Amino acid sequence: MSHSGTGDVRTLSGHPSNGNEDEFVGGQVARSALARGEGMTSQPEFDDWLDACRADQTIRVERRALDELEAWSVDPDTGTIGHASGRFFTVEGVEVNNHHGPIQHWEQPIINQPEVGIQGLLVKEFDGVLHCLMQAKVEPGNFGGVQLSPTVQATRSNYTGVHGGRAVPYVSYFQAGARRRVVCDVRQSEQGAWCYRKHNRYQIVHVTEPVEVLDGFCWLTVRQLHELLAVPDLMNWAARSVLACLPFSADAATALSGHETAETALARSVIRSLSAEGAAALPMAEVLSWITEVRCRNDVEARLIPLREANLWTMRDGAIEHESGCFFRVAGFEVWAGRREVAHWSQPMLEAPSLGLNGLLVKRINGVLHAYMHARVEAGFVDVVELAPTVQCTPDNYSWLSATARPPYMDLLLSVPEDRIRFDVIHSEEGGRFYHARNRYLVVEVGDDDPLPEHEDYRWMSLQQLGILIRHSHYVNVQARSLLACVRGMAGLG
Amino acid sequence: MSHSGTGDVRTLSGHPSNGNEDEFVGGQVARSALARGEGMTSQPEFDDWLDACRADQTIRVERRALDELEAWSVDPDTGTIGHASGRFFTVEGVEVNNHHGPIQHWEQPIINQPEVGIQGLLVKEFDGVLHCLMQAKVEPGNFGGVQLSPTVQATRSNYTGVHGGRAVPYVSYFQAGARRRVVCDVRQSEQGAWCYRKHNRYQIVHVTEPVEVLDGFCWLTVRQLHELLAVPDLMNWAARSVLACLPFSADAATALSGHETAETALARSVIRSLSAEGAAALPMAEVLSWITEVRCRNDVEARLIPLREANLWTMRDGAIEHESGCFFRVAGFEVWAGRREVAHWSQPMLEAPSLGLNGLLVKRINGVLHAYMHARVEAGFVDVVELAPTVQCTPDNYSWLSATARPPYMDLLLSVPEDRIRFDVIHSEEGGRFYHARNRYLVVEVGDDDPLPEHEDYRWMSLQQLGILIRHSHYVNVQARSLLACVRGMAGLG
Repeated sequence: MSHSGTGDVRTLSGHPSNGNEDEFVGGQVARSALARGEGMTSQPEFDDWLDACRADQTIRVERRALDELEAWSVDPDTGTIGHASGRFFTVEGVEVNNHHGPIQHWEQPIINQPEVGIQGLLVKEFDGVLHCLMQAKVEPGNFGGVQLSPTVQATRSNYTGVHGGRAVPYVSYFQAGARRRVVCDVRQSEQGAWCYRKHNRYQIVHVTEPVEVLDGFCWLTVRQLHELLAVPDLMNWAARSVLACLPFSADAATALSGHETAETALARSVIRSLSAEGAAALPMAEVLSWITEVRCRNDVEARLIPLREANLWTMRDGAIEHESGCFFRVAGFEVWAGRREVAHWSQPMLEAPSLGLNGLLVKRINGVLHAYMHARVEAGFVDVVELAPTVQCTPDNYSWLSATARPPYMDLLLSVPEDRIRFDVIHSEEGGRFYHARNRYLVVEVGDDDPLPEHEDYRWMSLQQLGILIRHSHYVNVQARSLLACVRGMAGLG
Repeated sequence: MSHSGTGDVRTLSGHPSNGNEDEFVGGQVARSALARGEGMTSQPEFDDWLDACRADQTIRVERRALDELEAWSVDPDTGTIGHASGRFFTVEGVEVNNHHGPIQHWEQPIINQPEVGIQGLLVKEFDGVLHCLMQAKVEPGNFGGVQLSPTVQATRSNYTGVHGGRAVPYVSYFQAGARRRVVCDVRQSEQGAWCYRKHNRYQIVHVTEPVEVLDGFCWLTVRQLHELLAVPDLMNWAARSVLACLPFSADAATALSGHETAETALARSVIRSLSAEGAAALPMAEVLSWITEVRCRNDVEARLIPLREANLWTMRDGAIEHESGCFFRVAGFEVWAGRREVAHWSQPMLEAPSLGLNGLLVKRINGVLHAYMHARVEAGFVDVVELAPTVQCTPDNYSWLSATARPPYMDLLLSVPEDRIRFDVIHSEEGGRFYHARNRYLVVEVGDDDPLPEHEDYRWMSLQQLGILIRHSHYVNVQARSLLACVRGMAGLG
């Protein structure tokens, strides 16, 4: 196979990204990333707007012991961590049993928040180019402060006003009875390893009427957003995820933006992969059959248990840790924020001790880009497995886990020559309940010559097939949705 | 609106069906139903085969008190009814809370059987006509004895041989690793009102190699099966359901069978409804958005509880009944069967005291047949609601339930003039755990002149839209799947 012409895809966003977590943080990169932006918000306008948002939305976070958090308590019997009001979320324990796979039993803390939040994106055409109304928003767990989020991110408590805080701007567009054209409206899972059966409602709503742009909001084109995916820690988890839910065919790609797409072989393979004309390696009936088969083969039972009973997890120095120090910690924080509805509060967050890896192997099959998807079990999934990236893990955890638990293809992905890397950027996960949880998003292209052992839990799929599945709940996990947006972005679509 | 030309659709199957439950039971009707059959199994061959199966597969069932069933016991603490081996299923209690809808809290017994069974259909072309390998099978709860079932109906205990019984014929076609072409492979729910989160794996597998036809099996065309849907209590629940999972477009309809489709206005509207050329009243994005909205609006919590604690349910004369005598009973039975792997056994079954109603309103919109689907909450559903027929109820229950709980459109459906009825046949539900559970399957056509108040839990959908959803789990419930097969059958498809 030939890699000719693929080098420039990596630089479509105007700058290289090497995944070094110290190198691309802050406003400089954000300013340079939009050099080719041609939407209603010009590059200088975006820079100024982001700077102003950063100046305006300050946040300060300090560590506190879990049992000293104001308004939060640790239940003496169960160990459950909860708020005095009964609102927000609790941290409980979960016990997972599966008669299949390398790890057949484990226990862990998990966030329980049985309500469906809204992740809403308002889209509108200006001069025939589709724009998205983005919000600059800071969260206490964010690495690097302000990030771009969809138009609305609201828990049920938020948008029903239980908080007693301000009304959520633009939320009425996403509520029942609104006059609107729905582009997408689907519940999608959150991080299944950290949240129990939690999903959010992703809504993309197309409007034609004038929309007042409030402070902290900005119209950006789909192409601009795709380019911003090359900037570390800027597009937040929900922005990446909702972008992946935007229906996208090769026709739509140009129709939506009026831009010419990048004319490299890899970019063409992405575009062909989005449409029916590029045939997928596996017929859709076989893809669905494989998912059904994996869901029937795995016999997962995930059951909430008292947090105190979660084996190998203990309170140490005011935080709950695994005995190995791996996986994550449940830690307490006190927060002071400039523009939040409540300016000062305390809360627990799940803290990642080290950088995670969400890696996707891609391959051109008959000129059509395919992604190698993993049907993966997570403790918090509603329906046994969802499609995950080829490799989704925290490499440091394997200092403690047995060698047999080492994920297939992880070593391949981490040892691949530099010239196979097509995308390599660090992004942040949710910042409201996770503290500095960050993952390296890596796309690596392999060819027919690369030996890739077959595995019953992995299949090659086209982007069109992923697009069909993403219209329904419980198929594509949050990490895979992020990578799907990144792969589209690689081809300069918008 | 005009009903001209629709009368003959009702008689496509060669005989009328008026839903009188005493009139069409037994072999005579089965013999007459295939008058126009042109598959590999001729009408006389089918008659002889079914007679022979009935003679061969005898079953005798006698009532026993629940606490006297051999090998079954009632747990003294919880009231759970279970088998000594821990296999088969248990009868437990369930408590349902929903903050939406007319009935916001109830408790009831429910079958708990946390394993995924196989409902497998082998299909093959003879002379270019698609045939299905059907099995004649008797179950203890069947009304009228032998019924037609898919090629394979097997619980996990069955096909893994835990029973110690005979190997399940043809099951290898439906197991991982088999060389085969998968037409459909999807988990679908069972009766959510009677079974807790139970689903089965529906597989349709296309073969080209020779298949030995064992005793009790028979090849029938899709058209023959559609015609047999007009015979009461003959096509069993799984046969109806798997038939509904067969992907069906207007093109495929003729290509599959080589038959000309019926040329009436109603039949044409069914055919147009199966294909993209007939536009649906509501775009698919709006249909998905509505389902998402209903799933978010309902806040259902269904939780297993000890059966002893199920309020209003008590043991009376050896069976568990609701204080009203409505809904269903949990009763005990002793069974003697001629050709079962175990010839004599006892078991509990859920018994329906009166006939249920599964009624579908249909309407031609722009010449395309639409079905009026209900997004319905049931205690046992995995994902809040599934699409159900317009009306799904047991009318006699409303002697006890309050008038506000009376289902919308029930009175309309039951009082409609005779000339609006397009299909009206009684079918049996599952006979392995339900005793004489039977429903009247009724399709009623309304026109633009009929006043039909709008309701937030109901939408008009085309058959193509239902076909898209049925490829995925948790969308279309078992009663709606039966009716979908019946509607296709109305148009003489196959």
